[in-house]
Amino acid sequence: MAIVVTDIQRPDPDITAKYITQKLGVATVHEAQGRTGLLDSSIRPIQQGAYVCGPAVTVSVPPCDNWMIVAAVEQCRPGDVLVVAPTSDSDSGYFGDLLATSLQSRGVHALIINAGVRDTGELRKQGFSVWSKCIYSQGTVKETLGDINVPVICAGQLVHPGDLVIADDDGVCIVPLKNAESVLKQSIEREALEESKRARMSRGELGLDIYNFREKLRAKGLKYISQHEYLDSERS
Amino acid sequence: MAIVVTDIQRPDPDITAKYITQKLGVATVHEAQGRTGLLDSSIRPIQQGAYVCGPAVTVSVPPCDNWMIVAAVEQCRPGDVLVVAPTSDSDSGYFGDLLATSLQSRGVHALIINAGVRDTGELRKQGFSVWSKCIYSQGTVKETLGDINVPVICAGQLVHPGDLVIADDDGVCIVPLKNAESVLKQSIEREALEESKRARMSRGELGLDIYNFREKLRAKGLKYISQHEYLDSERS
Amino acid sequence: MAIVVTDIQRPDPDITAKYITQKLGVATVHEAQGRTGLLDSSIRPIQQGAYVCGPAVTVSVPPCDNWMIVAAVEQCRPGDVLVVAPTSDSDSGYFGDLLATSLQSRGVHALIINAGVRDTGELRKQGFSVWSKCIYSQGTVKETLGDINVPVICAGQLVHPGDLVIADDDGVCIVPLKNAESVLKQSIEREALEESKRARMSRGELGLDIYNFREKLRAKGLKYISQHEYLDSERS
Amino acid sequence: MAIVVTDIQRPDPDITAKYITQKLGVATVHEAQGRTGLLDSSIRPIQQGAYVCGPAVTVSVPPCDNWMIVAAVEQCRPGDVLVVAPTSDSDSGYFGDLLATSLQSRGVHALIINAGVRDTGELRKQGFSVWSKCIYSQGTVKETLGDINVPVICAGQLVHPGDLVIADDDGVCIVPLKNAESVLKQSIEREALEESKRARMSRGELGLDIYNFREKLRAKGLKYISQHEYLDSERS
Amino acid sequence: MAIVVTDIQRPDPDITAKYITQKLGVATVHEAQGRTGLLDSSIRPIQQGAYVCGPAVTVSVPPCDNWMIVAAVEQCRPGDVLVVAPTSDSDSGYFGDLLATSLQSRGVHALIINAGVRDTGELRKQGFSVWSKCIYSQGTVKETLGDINVPVICAGQLVHPGDLVIADDDGVCIVPLKNAESVLKQSIEREALEESKRARMSRGELGLDIYNFREKLRAKGLKYISQHEYLDSERS
Amino acid sequence: MAIVVTDIQRPDPDITAKYITQKLGVATVHEAQGRTGLLDSSIRPIQQGAYVCGPAVTVSVPPCDNWMIVAAVEQCRPGDVLVVAPTSDSDSGYFGDLLATSLQSRGVHALIINAGVRDTGELRKQGFSVWSKCIYSQGTVKETLGDINVPVICAGQLVHPGDLVIADDDGVCIVPLKNAESVLKQSIEREALEESKRARMSRGELGLDIYNFREKLRAKGLKYISQHEYLDSERS
Repeated sequence: MAIVVTDIQRPDPDITAKYITQKLGVATVHEAQGRTGLLDSSIRPIQQGAYVCGPAVTVSVPPCDNWMIVAAVEQCRPGDVLVVAPTSDSDSGYFGDLLATSLQSRGVHALIINAGVRDTGELRKQGFSVWSKCIYSQGTVKETLGDINVPVICAGQLVHPGDLVIADDDGVCIVPLKNAESVLKQSIEREALEESKRARMSRGELGLDIYNFREKLRAKGLKYISQHEYLDSERS
Repeated sequence: MAIVVTDIQRPDPDITAKYITQKLGVATVHEAQGRTGLLDSSIRPIQQGAYVCGPAVTVSVPPCDNWMIVAAVEQCRPGDVLVVAPTSDSDSGYFGDLLATSLQSRGVHALIINAGVRDTGELRKQGFSVWSKCIYSQGTVKETLGDINVPVICAGQLVHPGDLVIADDDGVCIVPLKNAESVLKQSIEREALEESKRARMSRGELGLDIYNFREKLRAKGLKYISQHEYLDSERS
Repeated sequence: MAIVVTDIQRPDPDITAKYITQKLGVATVHEAQGRTGLLDSSIRPIQQGAYVCGPAVTVSVPPCDNWMIVAAVEQCRPGDVLVVAPTSDSDSGYFGDLLATSLQSRGVHALIINAGVRDTGELRKQGFSVWSKCIYSQGTVKETLGDINVPVICAGQLVHPGDLVIADDDGVCIVPLKNAESVLKQSIEREALEESKRARMSRGELGLDIYNFREKLRAKGLKYISQHEYLDSERS
Repeated sequence: MAIVVTDIQRPDPDITAKYITQKLGVATVHEAQGRTGLLDSSIRPIQQGAYVCGPAVTVSVPPCDNWMIVAAVEQCRPGDVLVVAPTSDSDSGYFGDLLATSLQSRGVHALIINAGVRDTGELRKQGFSVWSKCIYSQGTVKETLGDINVPVICAGQLVHPGDLVIADDDGVCIVPLKNAESVLKQSIEREALEESKRARMSRGELGLDIYNFREKLRAKGLKYISQHEYLDSERS
Repeated sequence: MAIVVTDIQRPDPDITAKYITQKLGVATVHEAQGRTGLLDSSIRPIQQGAYVCGPAVTVSVPPCDNWMIVAAVEQCRPGDVLVVAPTSDSDSGYFGDLLATSLQSRGVHALIINAGVRDTGELRKQGFSVWSKCIYSQGTVKETLGDINVPVICAGQLVHPGDLVIADDDGVCIVPLKNAESVLKQSIEREALEESKRARMSRGELGLDIYNFREKLRAKGLKYISQHEYLDSERS
Repeated sequence: MAIVVTDIQRPDPDITAKYITQKLGVATVHEAQGRTGLLDSSIRPIQQGAYVCGPAVTVSVPPCDNWMIVAAVEQCRPGDVLVVAPTSDSDSGYFGDLLATSLQSRGVHALIINAGVRDTGELRKQGFSVWSKCIYSQGTVKETLGDINVPVICAGQLVHPGDLVIADDDGVCIVPLKNAESVLKQSIEREALEESKRARMSRGELGLDIYNFREKLRAKGLKYISQHEYLDSERS
């Protein structure tokens, strides 16, 4: 289509701020919104310990061509997360430290890309966070148009511009813009619930008891036997 | 089968303690027991520098269902290593920080799993070590029974409950319970042998001479030639 | 063939030294020599932050047999980089800390291998850098001859003995011996060019303007529209 | 969500009929609609020589659970193509000859699934065509709800119910419902254009001349040289 | 260990004959024995339409070494199926038309191998059936011992000598020797059950009704809505 | 480089003809030339039963750009085999029925490509043989230059223009031009040797006896034991 959408809607900054303050992670948010929104497990961070939450600026790029990423910088605002998806499978290194410098000067500090990146040593030093399919220096060209801020499919998920991107050591999860507030609420509730269980478990209480699983397991037919009984039953 | 074997045999704790004291690693133990016992190279640590040695508590889980892991916590003793194998290929995140907290309260600090894990940032902070097939937040259910402490096939190896699990930065190796003592002896011998060679090599002695390889290589037909001779032979 | 070439030509040490002083990385050198020379993205470092530049000593090894690596140590000089390529696909652990100790005693501190390595915890402690296809303890034998310092195909690239090997967090790039000087010059020029752009970008100037892309994008047909216009066009 | 949409819009049957009559294939349609709509190359036919074109009935299934496929049969009309996408990566065998028999009794003869199938020998005998991620007998359960006739992401493409599915030996391509007519027109034009070129090429005319490439190649810098000149340039 | 077990127990030939007469396939047998016994989906047939059922003669081979397969021929009886598992991952071509000729002269017509095969065109012509990990001509050596007729792990399954091997277009399933008769009975029952359902389905009856799923789906919360209602709910 | 070498040397047509007459296959030739020359096992035929032997016309193509293939047609002579290698990893469909028609009009009937192809149903009908990395319709562009008839690395092998390409159901093997005659001789000898063994084996003689392996196996330590003895040894 070759379109740049210039004035995308973003979530209320107060909502985004609350995700960040509470550091609501990928596993929590994914569960809180009904086990949806997870990018494929092939998308891995190039750094350890980073946490990111911000609105997606989406870029649909042709194979082996990063021209649109250069054009996308202008569409970013502080706190945005760039989400780049090639139209066909690619390991090429679409992104390096120059583009990161340009984004950082606009307050953007994270990239999600279903392709390769390079200058990874430098990116880590600059504090620019990346979740990518691979690390590869193979260069790209600047010949063919793509689209900015249209819906893209990135690593198995449909991402609309303005959707909230959550990323940490576990991977990446997308929260649709319209659900940003409700998922925030559910994530906080889930965290609270987990916190109370964590406290009980750290004191040695068993999940079997906390969740009342013993009766249910017995009803389904689980048998507890000695190793002696087991080996006998195998021999017969 | 839906069975929990409750009183598995474990190796003599003195033997396990000696592996740990000497920090006998995966490569050493694998060689010492005749190049057997290695899990597939797809099983990777989520942390760096961890070393683990302890008896296996085995868990056979259905695809996408982690119910049996909750039930397995009760079967663990301090120093055990949980070994989880799905009955069919799965990348789902069967394990996170809550289960780790529960295990740690019982003195268990390591998991081997031929599937995914999540909350990996938190697990590293807690000092809980994991060797897994992937990192993925995709949730599982608690619907279907499996088995605890029966033999399982995990990443290409047959693991019996009570077998010794050795894991480090190189991966994971299984020592059958009945061989724990003999393999300990062979591992220590191998380490001693390597230590003496390491000393000679660090002084600049060549493996070619230490192992007396020169004659054997010549007999097999190895030729030493100059680059000039080589290029001439290629041109003709 | 079963040949050891003993007196390979190496690049002028002054040239190699300049690469090292300027720490010219894989992405830069790959671009500077016309986007050639890159090993497959499957070759990954076992450590973070290492930079290596040195002449290749090449080793062609049979599957599951590391005998030739022992023989290759003798052919190395300080600053060389060992490049090992199996003749057929292999994940076996051809290389561990003993061989690393032997190489370090001769001033060699880096290995590139299209196969597996082991003792990776120890290798990191010793400060020996490795770029490999995988980490795997599976042992190899010492039965079959191979070749040393003949051209090898390693992870998709033809490597001649004496070619310059550049490796960093991004991967590995090969510079043909005869091009070592010209590529050095082009790499330095590229770095300078990038430095000036980096400075402009860090001040907030856009790539769109620095490269004069606006007119070219418009000519190719890129349209800037509002989100309102976009959604309307989708609905019709 | 757990929703079945019961009365989806489908393309005009006359349009679908024209695709079928002209046997417009995946490569042609993919090009005709601007190189979009292609499912990942991992989706392969289990048979050879089949051609399918029909409206998508979409099914979103949980991992390892095929309950919704049973429910989806009722929503199909003659000529429809079932498109099944698990919500997380799965190789399980969601589909076999019983479900195929049920679909065939309603005039449905093709399945696209980003997961496994089984009974493939029987499916080929029945003349039921399948494009799948793999062939695997691993069974699934019928425990958890999913959705029917909502938009799904299948092997990298967003598929809406009623979209036209084209599948042949090359793979699978999706034509959005609203574009079915315009893409038909463009596909026929492309076919006609190719036919005229095919005729010229089969008579020995070169693409270089048919497309007037000689001048353009020269302008970009392509050089024609003899092997003698080439080898000389390499030696220097 | 380097052991050849010479007089393994095999299933009652009458039982094996009944599997063959009824052509009980992989999907059926896998289900009949409680969804166990399936080799990984990476094991694929090199031919189409073959069906095999017979006792396993197991061979554990070193990487890249097929010596033990030559030795295993002598241990085979008519109707046996050779099951070959390398001790570490290998794509090498362990098996070709000469070994097939040798096996066929003893009445053995099928091979299961978690590695590569070659001469596949010839094998198909000879009517020798193969299920393998890949097709690859890479040669192996005859240097190192392995084991014959000991338990092996092949593509994720533990196979004991004498276990029944079932293989068809869907893949390979293992029935433990001691279960051969009970699984036969359950497989025949399952087939009969499926046949009655197939008849009803081919007449147009829906699985929803045959299995009484409608009520259960409603209870779990499945909603049937119109496309109009669906689009409205999305818009809000 | 952007070079077309126009007058490459080819093997003596009488030699090529003898390979074809005897239908010397990939496994035979690979062994005859010392287990070298094999392309990776990822390169698979799109048809069954084809045999090809002819001189390579090599094409080095940029990622996702097939312009050079159009230019390469002119450089082909009857009986040549086109060998196409992208400079970086690509699954794109570089080649379809139009290019095949053009090549066939010049007497070229086979393609080896380390990337994707499309129109595979049509190619099979035309009798044009292809060995490729995958089947994928994803289109390519015609923007960037590459090289024709320079050495290329294709699926792990260095291929010079004029080298002999052998391809059959097993895959692809390259015979260097200068070795075409000697490898022919060795292949014929190997075939004769195998033929005599095949005759003996088809009469029931064992490889153990034909190759005199019994003594060698015993010397290495192979033990023949009964299943009773084996199970006893395991129990202890």
